[in-house]
Amino acid sequence: MPDSAAVANPVNVGVVGAGRIGTSHAELLARRVPGARLLAVADLRPGAADRLASRLGCRAVANPAQLFEDSDIEAVVIAASSEAHTELIVAATAAGKAVFCEKPMGLTIADVDQAIEAAQAAGVALQVGFNRRFSADFAAARQLVVDGKIGTPQLMRSLTRDPGLANPGGVPPWTIFLQTLIHDFDTLLWLNSGSNPTTVYAAADALVAPEFKDAGLLDTAMVVIKFDNGAIATAEASFSAGYGYDVRGEVFGSAGMATIGDVARTSMRYHSRDGRLADTVRSDVELFRDAYTAEFTEFTDAVRGRREPTVTGGDARRALVLALASVESVKTGLPVSVVTIDPS
Amino acid sequence: MPDSAAVANPVNVGVVGAGRIGTSHAELLARRVPGARLLAVADLRPGAADRLASRLGCRAVANPAQLFEDSDIEAVVIAASSEAHTELIVAATAAGKAVFCEKPMGLTIADVDQAIEAAQAAGVALQVGFNRRFSADFAAARQLVVDGKIGTPQLMRSLTRDPGLANPGGVPPWTIFLQTLIHDFDTLLWLNSGSNPTTVYAAADALVAPEFKDAGLLDTAMVVIKFDNGAIATAEASFSAGYGYDVRGEVFGSAGMATIGDVARTSMRYHSRDGRLADTVRSDVELFRDAYTAEFTEFTDAVRGRREPTVTGGDARRALVLALASVESVKTGLPVSVVTIDPS
Amino acid sequence: MPDSAAVANPVNVGVVGAGRIGTSHAELLARRVPGARLLAVADLRPGAADRLASRLGCRAVANPAQLFEDSDIEAVVIAASSEAHTELIVAATAAGKAVFCEKPMGLTIADVDQAIEAAQAAGVALQVGFNRRFSADFAAARQLVVDGKIGTPQLMRSLTRDPGLANPGGVPPWTIFLQTLIHDFDTLLWLNSGSNPTTVYAAADALVAPEFKDAGLLDTAMVVIKFDNGAIATAEASFSAGYGYDVRGEVFGSAGMATIGDVARTSMRYHSRDGRLADTVRSDVELFRDAYTAEFTEFTDAVRGRREPTVTGGDARRALVLALASVESVKTGLPVSVVTIDPS
Amino acid sequence: MPDSAAVANPVNVGVVGAGRIGTSHAELLARRVPGARLLAVADLRPGAADRLASRLGCRAVANPAQLFEDSDIEAVVIAASSEAHTELIVAATAAGKAVFCEKPMGLTIADVDQAIEAAQAAGVALQVGFNRRFSADFAAARQLVVDGKIGTPQLMRSLTRDPGLANPGGVPPWTIFLQTLIHDFDTLLWLNSGSNPTTVYAAADALVAPEFKDAGLLDTAMVVIKFDNGAIATAEASFSAGYGYDVRGEVFGSAGMATIGDVARTSMRYHSRDGRLADTVRSDVELFRDAYTAEFTEFTDAVRGRREPTVTGGDARRALVLALASVESVKTGLPVSVVTIDPS
Repeated sequence: MPDSAAVANPVNVGVVGAGRIGTSHAELLARRVPGARLLAVADLRPGAADRLASRLGCRAVANPAQLFEDSDIEAVVIAASSEAHTELIVAATAAGKAVFCEKPMGLTIADVDQAIEAAQAAGVALQVGFNRRFSADFAAARQLVVDGKIGTPQLMRSLTRDPGLANPGGVPPWTIFLQTLIHDFDTLLWLNSGSNPTTVYAAADALVAPEFKDAGLLDTAMVVIKFDNGAIATAEASFSAGYGYDVRGEVFGSAGMATIGDVARTSMRYHSRDGRLADTVRSDVELFRDAYTAEFTEFTDAVRGRREPTVTGGDARRALVLALASVESVKTGLPVSVVTIDPS
Repeated sequence: MPDSAAVANPVNVGVVGAGRIGTSHAELLARRVPGARLLAVADLRPGAADRLASRLGCRAVANPAQLFEDSDIEAVVIAASSEAHTELIVAATAAGKAVFCEKPMGLTIADVDQAIEAAQAAGVALQVGFNRRFSADFAAARQLVVDGKIGTPQLMRSLTRDPGLANPGGVPPWTIFLQTLIHDFDTLLWLNSGSNPTTVYAAADALVAPEFKDAGLLDTAMVVIKFDNGAIATAEASFSAGYGYDVRGEVFGSAGMATIGDVARTSMRYHSRDGRLADTVRSDVELFRDAYTAEFTEFTDAVRGRREPTVTGGDARRALVLALASVESVKTGLPVSVVTIDPS
Repeated sequence: MPDSAAVANPVNVGVVGAGRIGTSHAELLARRVPGARLLAVADLRPGAADRLASRLGCRAVANPAQLFEDSDIEAVVIAASSEAHTELIVAATAAGKAVFCEKPMGLTIADVDQAIEAAQAAGVALQVGFNRRFSADFAAARQLVVDGKIGTPQLMRSLTRDPGLANPGGVPPWTIFLQTLIHDFDTLLWLNSGSNPTTVYAAADALVAPEFKDAGLLDTAMVVIKFDNGAIATAEASFSAGYGYDVRGEVFGSAGMATIGDVARTSMRYHSRDGRLADTVRSDVELFRDAYTAEFTEFTDAVRGRREPTVTGGDARRALVLALASVESVKTGLPVSVVTIDPS
Repeated sequence: MPDSAAVANPVNVGVVGAGRIGTSHAELLARRVPGARLLAVADLRPGAADRLASRLGCRAVANPAQLFEDSDIEAVVIAASSEAHTELIVAATAAGKAVFCEKPMGLTIADVDQAIEAAQAAGVALQVGFNRRFSADFAAARQLVVDGKIGTPQLMRSLTRDPGLANPGGVPPWTIFLQTLIHDFDTLLWLNSGSNPTTVYAAADALVAPEFKDAGLLDTAMVVIKFDNGAIATAEASFSAGYGYDVRGEVFGSAGMATIGDVARTSMRYHSRDGRLADTVRSDVELFRDAYTAEFTEFTDAVRGRREPTVTGGDARRALVLALASVESVKTGLPVSVVTIDPS
């Protein structure tokens, strides 16, 4: 729970993007994050921002620039399309706004570096939406690593399986690496922090919607990452998990092992002639509601100077390196050497 | 999620009682229930209300009557000591306030009836804090019953085991029935709704703090309840569950069975030379945070007339009948026949 | 694993009864218990023994007396109808045979005492079929009690739910207590050994086949047992668990808690659009195969003098006392005081 | 359960090798497999066969050739060192013995082919010890694939983690692929049968005992296998799982997903102040006792002509191809194309 200052002096926030995840973020900011006060939402699509704003009791604007020009707004949460992230970060930070940006922060290293530099130059907080770090399940495993209960990580796993592709035609190429596995890359880097990845090998295919393969849409992927402390990790994703939204992880080390994640929605188990059944989680919004809330709480705390953001532009950069190396590996069919990254 | 009206027009709430559960309720109302705006907290103990109010950015008063007199306050949440509940409900409803009252609503049938009548006379909403109905785990089992997937309930179980008695000397007699098992009684009545209990047999002892047995403090109890549809249920409680806060249930019927509850805090499992370990939940506040939030959301919706409260004074009365019958059974060592109750 | 002597010098065994459980026992003795050599099976029903014997490569007799007269046979396993147990034990022990008798050893205290005395007079081993003590799951919990990891038991549970009554008309009255719950009574006495039961209260009904209630067939039962160390236990049974064969237990004490049992048949979990599914165990023979094998291994070891039987006639007597007290409680609707039993 | 013929006419078996796994196999054959009669064990190390034979009540010989010359022996179980397998199979089949050979059947394709041809020429059964196929857990998942409940496999996983390397110096090079992961390769081929692997990429290191890396001992490995139906699989192994013997699998397809395996030893869960604990399995012999018994039952049935062995020399060859490709991949650091294999 945030302390009283959060409530007494909430951060005035604007949200850029009223799509699926922008809507969820706006709702959480309006209703579950006491340290935030949602002032406005922006979306270029006619009506999208209006509907959301009307529902949440805040203002709607079409152009994000209107948020940046608004002196009442202290911070923006960017949940627009990935290609626009860099430009939006540069504009927002130039206007002195603190920025929370959904992953991926950018689609090229140059873009990411530009965003990082812009925030540094403006002296504002920049946080990236690697929400899994804020889930109690993943955080418990990370704590074991920090406490030495795992020892040196040796084998790791992170996976994301999504319930399905409603519209494969609308998905940009390499999405599975840049948008989905970027989460798993961050999870693995975080669980094995202090060590650097050295080699990436990726296998991927279009098994769900093969007709979109030529357009670059891959829906099934497996990535192997070797680290300089000896750890070997896999990151795995699929866009066709009809059984639910499945995010799990595992870290095995010299002293112990942790498994993370469960697709069961509640503790209730139903027993009938057909066996024992558990309901499953259906979406990221359902699985990670508390984690999203926690990351926004950290962000508003960071804006108020009460703590440093723990998920930085550098983290976005490190995960992107693995995503780009995966793309390269799929293109060449070969392992790709990862340039050494400063883990700081 | 509540709809926009909840945010646009939140219910102004006052909280009576700044103890452990009152503090938790006030925090949730201030920070997690968009349909509520916390205006003030009241506590007779010097400083208690002040500290909480200061933290949450609301007003503090010493006397609950000040809340009732405040025309800005539309509803009160009563989390005071149980003996005071009836008097507070009567005063609050007389002042036209909607009332959410922690369980038990009263300690005698006469008191409960007086509270119900007061709310009816005033035409205000009266909701009781049987929060387990709002937990996703219990609600999923109840839904199975409603959907006919369990068939007619035949064997049921509800249990509450608390991590421990810090101060046995301060616990009133019969607490285990009136304050703790009252939850389990409601759960069982709700899972088997439409049927009436007929007989209660209770066994109880002071095993944790036997030196307080003469003062009426029992810390371990088992109650068997027979219903007129044939179902046989047990309600079980202990004040010495060092391993965590353990609330579970089970409903077995002619068509299927549901188990409810898990003391594991997260999905993370740690594997070491000592075996496989799961962290456990330590308190009701931790286990039921979402359930508390959901019951307050229902309450504020009821105040705004958007839905009826589903947990009524009648429910409080029915659970109390079982608690009082249990006390009688312990005193006599015999089964107690329960007077027929109108299940409506 | 038994040591070499078991194989070098197996005990020659005859089985009395070729019904469902006798057939399973004969198969295990023939094929899974190296310390036993199955010589013959007896069954009064024409053909039953023949078919089983032919399948297992041993002799068939109609009359159990033929087994007792056979000097090659050193031990008999009695899996006949319960009413015949005492007479069979008396005859077998008189002939110098060691006896393994399925539960219940007898249906009256006098019968049980007669059987115990007969075995003592003959100086032969007498072991009772409380197989759950030999299941790895229950034994692990019992070991925790022995090791002090549970502390003094305070709340206990044992339950048996059977997949169903194929032929209610053929079930003798009070079967649920004398044949089914007798297992649970033994489990509870064993988990709380060193303490004596003081009071029994039972609730039972005919919910599955109400038309047989007048004939004394109860199919659903709950028993509460109070012990002189303060522990309160429930034993619960049903004959209509369509979802599987469900045997579970729980022991909660001053230092910790153990849960026992899982209706899942394998570790495999299937995830589909309908949720996450586990196959369930369907019968005692499936659930307890290893436990049956282990109890016969102990029995053959006992016959060879390598160890004492741990499940004695005294254990059968103690469990029967609780079953008879339960019957009395159902008849009177009142708690029944249990005469003090020497726990040795 | 095998039928009566198995007992009436058991197969006379000799075991080659009295090491850890040979001892376990001999015990199961002597005591748990009714279709087998253990006649003799052979081991070149002085005393090893004697001790085991004395314990099991059979004959001991030093030289396996003595088993092959023994006309009473119909079948041999080879559990000698892997290098000796081919020569032993050739000699045994030449003598007309049916052969059950522990994995790996051979260490080169030429050796495996020679063994297959020898068995074919002799017209005797040849079965390979891929015991996981006989575990109820893995078999349940395979059945789902066969039944179409998984759809086309898309992502698969099989892992083996062993509790530890007692004596790293004694482990031959590439053991992790040829001896350990050979199980996982077979599991993956079997779960995805009808499809062929196309590419293998392996990452491996000596993390537990780095001082043995130069001698070729790798203790941690991850292999990615691509199949011609699009499936991507990982096989993962470690020799340092201090928490237990951990064998798990997963198969995710277009219609559903199955997870397989659990390191918990029993269903008993202990709850204390430290959390909730499950005991873990410590060895293959413990985890797979029933699976070993089942594979020997199939083998004796095959010898008697009652069914065909389902785990053939061809299966050994297919798994070996993946192991050798993994070794090649580690040596080169590159993915290795797998020559097309006839899946029949």
